[in-house]
Amino acid sequence: MTRSILAGIDVGGSKIAVLLTDLALRPIARRVVATGVGDPAAAVGQVADAVEVALHEVGRRTDELAAVGIGVPGRVEPDTGVVTLAVNLGWHEVALGAGLADRFGVPVAVENDVKAAAAGLASRDQTAGIADLAYLGIGTGISAGVVLGGRLYRGSRGLAGEIGHVVLQADGPVCQCGLRGCFEAIASGRGISELAEAAVRADVARPDGAVLATTLHAKGRLTAADVYAAAAAGDVAALAIVEGAGRAVARAVHLLVMTYDLQTVFLGGGVTGAGALFRDPVLQGLDALRDRSPLAREALGPDVVRVLPPDADAGAWGAVVLARTAAGPVHETPISGEPSRPAVAADQPRRR
Amino acid sequence: MTRSILAGIDVGGSKIAVLLTDLALRPIARRVVATGVGDPAAAVGQVADAVEVALHEVGRRTDELAAVGIGVPGRVEPDTGVVTLAVNLGWHEVALGAGLADRFGVPVAVENDVKAAAAGLASRDQTAGIADLAYLGIGTGISAGVVLGGRLYRGSRGLAGEIGHVVLQADGPVCQCGLRGCFEAIASGRGISELAEAAVRADVARPDGAVLATTLHAKGRLTAADVYAAAAAGDVAALAIVEGAGRAVARAVHLLVMTYDLQTVFLGGGVTGAGALFRDPVLQGLDALRDRSPLAREALGPDVVRVLPPDADAGAWGAVVLARTAAGPVHETPISGEPSRPAVAADQPRRR
Repeated sequence: MTRSILAGIDVGGSKIAVLLTDLALRPIARRVVATGVGDPAAAVGQVADAVEVALHEVGRRTDELAAVGIGVPGRVEPDTGVVTLAVNLGWHEVALGAGLADRFGVPVAVENDVKAAAAGLASRDQTAGIADLAYLGIGTGISAGVVLGGRLYRGSRGLAGEIGHVVLQADGPVCQCGLRGCFEAIASGRGISELAEAAVRADVARPDGAVLATTLHAKGRLTAADVYAAAAAGDVAALAIVEGAGRAVARAVHLLVMTYDLQTVFLGGGVTGAGALFRDPVLQGLDALRDRSPLAREALGPDVVRVLPPDADAGAWGAVVLARTAAGPVHETPISGEPSRPAVAADQPRRR
Repeated sequence: MTRSILAGIDVGGSKIAVLLTDLALRPIARRVVATGVGDPAAAVGQVADAVEVALHEVGRRTDELAAVGIGVPGRVEPDTGVVTLAVNLGWHEVALGAGLADRFGVPVAVENDVKAAAAGLASRDQTAGIADLAYLGIGTGISAGVVLGGRLYRGSRGLAGEIGHVVLQADGPVCQCGLRGCFEAIASGRGISELAEAAVRADVARPDGAVLATTLHAKGRLTAADVYAAAAAGDVAALAIVEGAGRAVARAVHLLVMTYDLQTVFLGGGVTGAGALFRDPVLQGLDALRDRSPLAREALGPDVVRVLPPDADAGAWGAVVLARTAAGPVHETPISGEPSRPAVAADQPRRR
């Protein structure tokens, strides 16, 4: 038996994505289970089953696994593999790492999903030469994973990159966290939905922009995708919301660059899948900053933002990179034709 | 001859401060020359003269110098000792490090003043156990020096911590940099002056707050100190400006903590010398964030902010710590009774 397969798992609110690679990070298989993880007691089994099915589909065995990496949308203790709090999953103090290690008998690395994605990006060919980057995950919530000098930067409490709850507009909408005008309240999927529902309730939708109201009345609620669709159909209130979200993303990119001196901020997560209606207001917002300020122009290089394609699998890739680190140095021998750079940023998160 | 004296120099717009210590950072002498540095050609001479006078005043000789560190309010290249741009000094591409090294024949470290102050704070007894901190310098302008894991973090372009030009209020006052609503436009000495002058021009000052107008008419301009004095005298417009500045500082501290996961932000610089009128709005702003959000409460510990006393000499201390690093490892032997910790954060800034 050769333990030669890495499994990277990205756990979301409504799906489990599994990516299998060899030790040089060459893809073997990808599987997405479109089901939410259930209660914590069942979660380890659900995740492990998804890995086993993915292995069996390509004729590989569980005992070929070398290591497992898993990204979870919440706060984790990488040292213990415990998910301390994952609000959207309903998890509190779940020993995910220990459970998976018991099941598979291999090392397991557990990390926050966005931090995992950032670590993964730092190890990909496309980011060669970018030592300082962030992955800004814009989904139901918003947070950033930050890589400095090629290594994932967590901070002493794992709070680094929690910019979803930085206040961008002191008199802005109330955020789930309790503050007003958080980045997340303006630009996350949840924030966009809530702003749109509030706009309909406030009757902001005018005759040339009644799409939001119609959708809300038909469905009883609005998703961010609904809001982008309404904006595409010319709904004025929806357009104002998605443009406000884009300007907020531009300001957050500027903020990340000015605080961390980053070279590139990668944008991913469900909301970024809205295409040009997501991307253009962000790029316009960055241009507006560059136009007004020479310092902003210097800080915000032409490639400062990259919107990841929907199939970028940043979370699963990040998890597989964590798995490679957990597997240990056995794979350090260079492999000819290797598609990925194994040396960079596979380091463990900083331990304190 | 024993080269056993370190010189730390803090160059400001209107003064040169020199701190002399032994190799264990025990103070020997301090001298402040209340004169602005002149044109770049004369600056090396002025700075060197200030060091020599400080030495001679305590009966020490120039050839006892082991190394010199110098902090400058502007952008520097630590590797070459060149000050690339110091707007307030009128300097552009000044080879300060080489000039001082020629004059004294010892290693010279050149750094941005705020970054130097941060590095210095990280090496002091009072910060033992604080590995992640920032020094937020609030003077004519605003910027932060950031220490992560005990080491000064500069970023690849030296822009790290340039949060004076992060936008806090999209429709706020126009900043010198060209953007609207920068932190610096709201809370720096220059920003406070300009807001106060604009308030008088806009006739915002009411009968119960005409102090600003009287001062402006008498002096022709307003300093930040004038605005704090007017606030102390009950001027309503001045109070609104200093309270707005304090809330902005609280938001910036929150922003720094949420991005970098810092433990403590030290506040220094001329504006912080206004005492309770500076400090209280900052603390109230932090309390308001803590009151509304459990996440903010967790992130912003009770000691998250420390206002440095006016005599803290953060800049000169930082420069002397840089000098110790430049002097090399000769002083690493522990000295009994040593008042400072010599091991931490004396590392050179990250080289790229």
